[in-house]
Amino acid sequence: MSKRRAPVDELYPEAKAGNRRSLGRLLSAVERGGPAAERISELTVGDAGRAHIVGITGAPGAGKSTLTGRLVSELVAAGRRPAVLAVDPSSPLTGGAILGDRIRVSVSPAAGELDTDPNVFIRSMATRGHAGGLALAVPLAVRLFDAVGYDPVIIETVGVGQVEVDVVGAADTAVVVMTPGMGDAVQANKAGLLEVADIFVVNKADRPGATDVRRDLELMLELSHVTGQEDPDGYRPPIVMASALEGQGSAEVWETVEAHLQFLTETGRRAVRRRHRVGVELRARMMQTLGNAVEAAIQSDMGSDLVTQVEAGELSPAAAGAKLLDGLPDTR
Amino acid sequence: MSKRRAPVDELYPEAKAGNRRSLGRLLSAVERGGPAAERISELTVGDAGRAHIVGITGAPGAGKSTLTGRLVSELVAAGRRPAVLAVDPSSPLTGGAILGDRIRVSVSPAAGELDTDPNVFIRSMATRGHAGGLALAVPLAVRLFDAVGYDPVIIETVGVGQVEVDVVGAADTAVVVMTPGMGDAVQANKAGLLEVADIFVVNKADRPGATDVRRDLELMLELSHVTGQEDPDGYRPPIVMASALEGQGSAEVWETVEAHLQFLTETGRRAVRRRHRVGVELRARMMQTLGNAVEAAIQSDMGSDLVTQVEAGELSPAAAGAKLLDGLPDTR
Repeated sequence: MSKRRAPVDELYPEAKAGNRRSLGRLLSAVERGGPAAERISELTVGDAGRAHIVGITGAPGAGKSTLTGRLVSELVAAGRRPAVLAVDPSSPLTGGAILGDRIRVSVSPAAGELDTDPNVFIRSMATRGHAGGLALAVPLAVRLFDAVGYDPVIIETVGVGQVEVDVVGAADTAVVVMTPGMGDAVQANKAGLLEVADIFVVNKADRPGATDVRRDLELMLELSHVTGQEDPDGYRPPIVMASALEGQGSAEVWETVEAHLQFLTETGRRAVRRRHRVGVELRARMMQTLGNAVEAAIQSDMGSDLVTQVEAGELSPAAAGAKLLDGLPDTR
Repeated sequence: MSKRRAPVDELYPEAKAGNRRSLGRLLSAVERGGPAAERISELTVGDAGRAHIVGITGAPGAGKSTLTGRLVSELVAAGRRPAVLAVDPSSPLTGGAILGDRIRVSVSPAAGELDTDPNVFIRSMATRGHAGGLALAVPLAVRLFDAVGYDPVIIETVGVGQVEVDVVGAADTAVVVMTPGMGDAVQANKAGLLEVADIFVVNKADRPGATDVRRDLELMLELSHVTGQEDPDGYRPPIVMASALEGQGSAEVWETVEAHLQFLTETGRRAVRRRHRVGVELRARMMQTLGNAVEAAIQSDMGSDLVTQVEAGELSPAAAGAKLLDGLPDTR
């Protein structure tokens, strides 16, 4: 074992051969970012691009994790090799991250059971303090799962922040999970989720108000149709009723997800989604680099002087920002 | 009235003289962004910098709007001229924004009553689709309120997104509102709110579990003390119990806010906050400009080619991002 060889160069073929421990270490490197993560991005070239990327989002408590667990069970039973990336801080899959250290899964009975299956890989990713980092780590983790042979790759997240909406919007198929009560359709609309949703799941459909949620959604979809925002190929997001906790509806959810992939393929739109996904990742990478340069500029002597001038009422923030941009060192 | 003169140049002195309609039009220009907003940033030079900037945040339903309404009533009774900027999509103050048009206030009885008072200005700001825009519009709106003579300026927001946490963290005094139940202290910690909070308010303190919330907070504050994250001047965020709906505790909340401002002034830290606030605004401005350049680069022929190469498995996203950064036109 040569010292010159980066550990990720050894770990990658091991992960491809099915070594879960190696994959786990690669994912940790992805999460930490830096040169090792960049190297992983290189290693996956040529291997990634096969998996069906599915985003599942919704408010905390909507039952996303339970639904994900059910879908994973069915996928394994059908001979698939699903991976789950959970970036939802309220998910039982990511529970414990608050304690500073990552406590691995096993909180939800479904997840605990599934995680022992060699054909499933579930990974949580801490969201705290990773606003920028997450935008880089999530696409790379998805790419890595794809490259080492997992398919589908399911991203479970909460649709509140822009990063999360971007992540789900960049999937092949975006599933938005709703529950009765609390004006969820309204909240989802505000969060920009209606625009990215390919499929709606009304979970906890046995509860009172489930049909109201469905009606609200249908109304909103109808409105967007009327206002000319309808899909050019006539696609209209289906609404699936489910009770994931009781195991009801998850089979139909997956059939709908598969049907959506078929629609994407038939209309040539899968390539459009892939291109969009690459664009989102490139944007995140560039903004990360530029953000570091901006941070350095603000901390510089020139930045400090400009802040002082704004603070003293001698210069507008607009003018100071423009000056600082002019003086931005060429860090590209 | 010369045609050459930008309308905001006329509106600004009118707003300073107390014309609410003119101020409202300026705020609309702030929200739209662009050259008129830049000009407003110029006009406020020399006028802004006096107001006490107070951020109030917490989960939806924590009673932030009710508390804000109570505080505003007391401030007016004490002869102050408060302004409120509500960027919370769940706030009754911002209710109706989803319908596409802004419905002005008056949903909450307190707000409806207060909005007729000439010494109060309440403005809601739509958050939808403004992830980037909001980061520019909020500081400028606060600056404008300050410049035309409102003091304090209260920003009410939901502490979920990074922009919102930044906004509250850049205030002079950050108030985090909690309620019993649902592990709010844990959620607040995850959102990064514990670090930015100067004052905690446990609202709905008459409900069961209120003392538990207080205990959780005290434990978390104790832990951060133990782990060496304590304040260099020995400041520890006070916890105030309140029942805003019943009008209880709001006087104590404001006394605590005032005491915090006094602490900031005595320790010389008010200047630090102001500088930090200017830095946050400059960063947002620079990132907005750079973001537009990045977007253009991705849409360019070179960007399209690089996306194609990544998509075809010939190039890593890391390498493509670096190449595109190299080719970024000098748009500064």
